[in-house]
Amino acid sequence: MKKLILSALLAVCALCTAAQNLWDAAQTSSPQINDDNSVTFRLHAPKAVKVLVTGDFLPDRTAELTENENGIWSFTTPPLAPELYSYAFIVDGLKILDPANVYVNRDVATLANIFLIEGGQADLYKVNDVPHGSLTRTWYHSPSLGTSRRMTVYTPPGYESGKLRYPVLYLLHGMGNDEEGWPALGRAARIMDNLIASGKAQPMIVVMTNGNVAQQAAPGEAPEGMVRPSFNLPHTMDGTFEASFPEIVARIDDCYRTLRDKHHRAIAGLSMGGFHAMQISKEYPDMFDYVGLFSAAVRAGYESRSRIYDNWQQKVKLQFKKRPALYWIAIGKDDFLYQANVEYRKWLDDNNLPYIYRESDGGHEWRNWRIYLSEFAPMLFRSKGATE
Amino acid sequence: MKKLILSALLAVCALCTAAQNLWDAAQTSSPQINDDNSVTFRLHAPKAVKVLVTGDFLPDRTAELTENENGIWSFTTPPLAPELYSYAFIVDGLKILDPANVYVNRDVATLANIFLIEGGQADLYKVNDVPHGSLTRTWYHSPSLGTSRRMTVYTPPGYESGKLRYPVLYLLHGMGNDEEGWPALGRAARIMDNLIASGKAQPMIVVMTNGNVAQQAAPGEAPEGMVRPSFNLPHTMDGTFEASFPEIVARIDDCYRTLRDKHHRAIAGLSMGGFHAMQISKEYPDMFDYVGLFSAAVRAGYESRSRIYDNWQQKVKLQFKKRPALYWIAIGKDDFLYQANVEYRKWLDDNNLPYIYRESDGGHEWRNWRIYLSEFAPMLFRSKGATE
Repeated sequence: MKKLILSALLAVCALCTAAQNLWDAAQTSSPQINDDNSVTFRLHAPKAVKVLVTGDFLPDRTAELTENENGIWSFTTPPLAPELYSYAFIVDGLKILDPANVYVNRDVATLANIFLIEGGQADLYKVNDVPHGSLTRTWYHSPSLGTSRRMTVYTPPGYESGKLRYPVLYLLHGMGNDEEGWPALGRAARIMDNLIASGKAQPMIVVMTNGNVAQQAAPGEAPEGMVRPSFNLPHTMDGTFEASFPEIVARIDDCYRTLRDKHHRAIAGLSMGGFHAMQISKEYPDMFDYVGLFSAAVRAGYESRSRIYDNWQQKVKLQFKKRPALYWIAIGKDDFLYQANVEYRKWLDDNNLPYIYRESDGGHEWRNWRIYLSEFAPMLFRSKGATE
Repeated sequence: MKKLILSALLAVCALCTAAQNLWDAAQTSSPQINDDNSVTFRLHAPKAVKVLVTGDFLPDRTAELTENENGIWSFTTPPLAPELYSYAFIVDGLKILDPANVYVNRDVATLANIFLIEGGQADLYKVNDVPHGSLTRTWYHSPSLGTSRRMTVYTPPGYESGKLRYPVLYLLHGMGNDEEGWPALGRAARIMDNLIASGKAQPMIVVMTNGNVAQQAAPGEAPEGMVRPSFNLPHTMDGTFEASFPEIVARIDDCYRTLRDKHHRAIAGLSMGGFHAMQISKEYPDMFDYVGLFSAAVRAGYESRSRIYDNWQQKVKLQFKKRPALYWIAIGKDDFLYQANVEYRKWLDDNNLPYIYRESDGGHEWRNWRIYLSEFAPMLFRSKGATE
């Protein structure tokens, strides 16, 4: 047994040494969030000539780091407002991730490091010490698309151990994203955990679909393997996804404890997903009582592409005849789709079709879509139909 | 409506341009897997003086890239055997990820790019066109640890839409990893999908726990936020995780359609997780009929730390009196824990305690643990007790 004890001690040492060699992580601390919410970035690059940090928190998008005698470059921002931020370094023209930060988000074909400044709205994006729902990657079969497809499903705290049925929010992504967009970039599970814990939102199931019918799943999760993610996929706006949507609702109603009526279903999407949500909700006017268009690519001119887009005006009018509990349109002042939304709202106004409008600062960005979800979810499933 | 069509077209263009600016992904193609399974790495770094690629597929661990007239550095490997490989670039001494490859794994505090060479064993690590199970991140409450904790649960294809009950494999990680280790580095869901689809393994639930009682969840998934992952956490081998394990089994049996007896439960772990699996299975000898020790940190000398480790010899003897259906020990010839396993097997032999031994090439690495899971899972739940 003595030998066994000795070998144990040797093993522990060996394990630590092995760790050093195998995973020699960067030894610098970066990003360092300071007490005043300024952030210090550091990079050990003694041979570099010029090091920049690029991020959505910098007025000029980039800032120059300065090198100390140990070859460690650093830069400290002014105090930052609470938010989930993204950044990367640019070393002698080469854009790289921070070797000291393992937290990254993928947006289309690019990884960026992330960090979070706590407080205010951003506290909804944190994992707080509240009950947590579950997040499931699962597959469904689409007869109309002739393939199985992946989606991400949030179930609220207590779902597994309980017997209750829940309403469902269908949450759609934009062009270039997929069923991983809302969970990662949108922090959807954290926002829902926190809204539900504070009583601001009803406990609900949130279904994050993949709106790219050319994909079975997010890049790397489908049989084609680790392909380069693409921004422009075929068939993203030809009506096929919208036409197939009832298959998704049927699958969710079949496999989850849902409340299976219009009063307990909502659909919302961003950009292309807003276009999808607008088309799906008007195509199936008895399916969703709550509709959210976030920076939506609302547009006409697609009539030729699909029967789904034919006579959309008549179909939207029919949808409103059935008095949706909520038709919510949100967009940022600087969004390149702002004018398209002005025109869509003008058409709704001209036809006396009632909606709620939310205009925010900023443009076509996740920062806004996280805010819109945080504001949209609390309005859901509070109508007479949903609560009676 | 004309205006609306025009704005639509403008919007599309704007969206594409925005994409360029927002996410300017690297334009080089890397890694490129060639027809002969050689792999070409490329990096656009015109100002770099020296560029290396470091990876587990290189005999010397690094290879030098050569620069062309356009500032694109490249290197092509010889044909590689099927495997999931990891790599990074080293640019003038700075270790960076490949900007053209969004596929990364985190191991402790380091990200590395990954790519897969298909064929043979590695086809188990791919997403194939087979029925897919679901992978859920979910939380349970641990009364003994006084906190809620996160785990990853694989349910086999058909679970959601069916009524069957399933056996359960509890799969434990090693030091520095967490409930994200087996799903990402271990490709556990892909291995299970593929083994089940080919009929090699019984459909089963696989529960991937977090064995670090100092953590509620993997780094970034717990209230402490985006902390730097640490290799050496407190209380990893003080018996508290092992003592709390029945709480996990009770939660799984409460929330999932499980077969709730010893004949339908297996436990396996790698390195520290192998130590945990050995301790847990002997501490609760009526809970698990199948035990897998993968490169296990089997060791004595811990008796003083916890009642769990007291009299472990007597407890293991009692466990074997109850005739486990399988006690499987696997390790690589070059593993630094090889000798500790020799000594543990000698003690088992001296006491006529029967086990199956699998010795592989290689050392203390995920390459081996993926193989061990691929070989262990097919042996599960085939005993008389499990099938009758």
